[in-house]
Amino acid sequence: MSPGLEAVYRVRADASSIEDRARAIAVEQSVEMPVEAIEDETVLSSIVARVVAIEQRDVGTFEVRVALAAETVGRDPGQLINMLFGNTSIHDDVVLHDAEIPGELARSFGGPRHGLHGLREKVGARDRALTCSALKPQGLPPERLAALAEKFARGGVDYVKDDHGLADQAYSPFAARVAAIAPALRAVEQATGRAARYVPSLSGDLVSMRRQVAVAREFGVDALMVAPMIAGLAGFHRLVRDNPDLAFFAHPALAGASRIAPPLLIGKLFRLFGADAVVFPNYGGRFGYSPEICRALARAALADWQGMRPSVPTPAGGMSLERVPEMLDFYGKDTMLLIGGALLAERERLVEATAAFVAAVERHGHG
Amino acid sequence: MSPGLEAVYRVRADASSIEDRARAIAVEQSVEMPVEAIEDETVLSSIVARVVAIEQRDVGTFEVRVALAAETVGRDPGQLINMLFGNTSIHDDVVLHDAEIPGELARSFGGPRHGLHGLREKVGARDRALTCSALKPQGLPPERLAALAEKFARGGVDYVKDDHGLADQAYSPFAARVAAIAPALRAVEQATGRAARYVPSLSGDLVSMRRQVAVAREFGVDALMVAPMIAGLAGFHRLVRDNPDLAFFAHPALAGASRIAPPLLIGKLFRLFGADAVVFPNYGGRFGYSPEICRALARAALADWQGMRPSVPTPAGGMSLERVPEMLDFYGKDTMLLIGGALLAERERLVEATAAFVAAVERHGHG
Repeated sequence: MSPGLEAVYRVRADASSIEDRARAIAVEQSVEMPVEAIEDETVLSSIVARVVAIEQRDVGTFEVRVALAAETVGRDPGQLINMLFGNTSIHDDVVLHDAEIPGELARSFGGPRHGLHGLREKVGARDRALTCSALKPQGLPPERLAALAEKFARGGVDYVKDDHGLADQAYSPFAARVAAIAPALRAVEQATGRAARYVPSLSGDLVSMRRQVAVAREFGVDALMVAPMIAGLAGFHRLVRDNPDLAFFAHPALAGASRIAPPLLIGKLFRLFGADAVVFPNYGGRFGYSPEICRALARAALADWQGMRPSVPTPAGGMSLERVPEMLDFYGKDTMLLIGGALLAERERLVEATAAFVAAVERHGHG
Repeated sequence: MSPGLEAVYRVRADASSIEDRARAIAVEQSVEMPVEAIEDETVLSSIVARVVAIEQRDVGTFEVRVALAAETVGRDPGQLINMLFGNTSIHDDVVLHDAEIPGELARSFGGPRHGLHGLREKVGARDRALTCSALKPQGLPPERLAALAEKFARGGVDYVKDDHGLADQAYSPFAARVAAIAPALRAVEQATGRAARYVPSLSGDLVSMRRQVAVAREFGVDALMVAPMIAGLAGFHRLVRDNPDLAFFAHPALAGASRIAPPLLIGKLFRLFGADAVVFPNYGGRFGYSPEICRALARAALADWQGMRPSVPTPAGGMSLERVPEMLDFYGKDTMLLIGGALLAERERLVEATAAFVAAVERHGHG
């Protein structure tokens, strides 16, 4: 067995049953049949997963480490998640808590092509936190979204992303949206010297997403957003591989909160497959992530890991201008703050509110 | 708002907070910003989702119906799940329990291209339950898998599917596997007159899966398996659309059990996007689905619904020969029984065990 690929589960069980349960998970996640019925020696010695550690964490909760054969993954992100959690996702007593990825496999995926440094460089930012806002509500036509984007840009924000609900709808087709918004931001750049980058959201199957990437390229867009759990991890990674000059933001839609630990899925795996920035729900907003989850996720995205570039932790979800100092104290400067609704709620004061957001970040970052 | 697209959630809340919580979900799943900050009349009247019903189900659990605008979906399966559950998947107090799909949207997806009738016809089965087994363990080389497939076929099984762990690994590449197994089954058909159909498992991104489909076609394969939650719902549906002459089995890997109700995800949505058969964990086996969940799932797969063909409910997971009569009593004849490990455990008696499985089904089905 190639050393190194491990799944780390948190399992609800009692002390008398955990060993059997752990072995059952190892079998389920590898050969998925009675081990005593396997005749092949190579399969028995190299493919059947092994329980390498069981450790009690709480009353009724155990951490179980299972060593999997890296050969079972090939180089397919979909097959990696399948091996880590495919059938076990159907068992409600198990959470996929963490994973160890062997160096060779990690290098084959390669992680972010731009990462924190690249996203700073694109917008001429030095060693400070980045800023981002979101175009919404869905339902607006392209020119109305472009007018909002222009205001965000005039306020000095670094990145303007589509709301993840913006897809390829009749009221705002992807191509028309990009054709309206990208030039609007370029006009602001020419007028003010300050570049805000548009990050349109890709949707549909890989064929559609590739077509959208081509459209985005035509209009000079160099950063895109994908929701990997909707697009499929393999499709997301394919876009990254095929477009090394473009940056990718990963959105957490459909990523859940409880079955795969967010620090693993969003911080580690989205990064592994090439997310330059990982959007996630900040603590204390509309979503239920705890400060500990957010901290662990940000650390996973930024950690020294197999020589990969860091992915920018991008907390979002019900954030407000008032929380900027608190968030920067919490996350440090290696982050991107995303405030959407709270800025849009300022309506005719959108430019000023955005400028205040940007100033709060720059003040704190340089302070 | 086009009538008809509704998400049905089960929400943990108390009576005093459920109305606010329901409204918050409706906003999260549509415009994702403070409604009072929306100026556009069309967005307010047509795009913001509305809570249409709240009903208490249990102490502390409410059913909440939210009407969404069908225009927000376009015709993209990924965007449909995004609108139904994208951000709300991150909220642990909400389960996506059901969904109403408007007729026009349902027809645009179209459901199974073959369905129950088509899968029976392919194997010359009349009005009886179908039989299926699985090739495993992963790690075996193609010729060893082909030898197993041949035995299943000689035993008279209808469909022989890949274990969902079989991807495109070095020890058993997809193309080599198909090249070994498809002719082996054809040889049995020529010898015995009984056709067993090979159902290889597709993996990777859409580009890889298309390449695999082309290989499968070369070898006369006409049924394929996909795990839609790993492949991405849109990618799965694209394969169905592009290959109306091929049948598709949907595998539940990564589908979970608790955040999206299995009858909805597997029975209804996989069918909607074109699954001719839906594999799911049977009650009383290794997985935790209850009999009620299994019954609801099978009913959803088979129900009269928008003129779509029925998808074959395919219970699996720790099934045994002894349970065949019980399962057929429970599911009726409009089903496909999948027994994998319990047959493989018979080793040198694999042909006989398979024949006994097939005989038990045919006896019951004709009885």
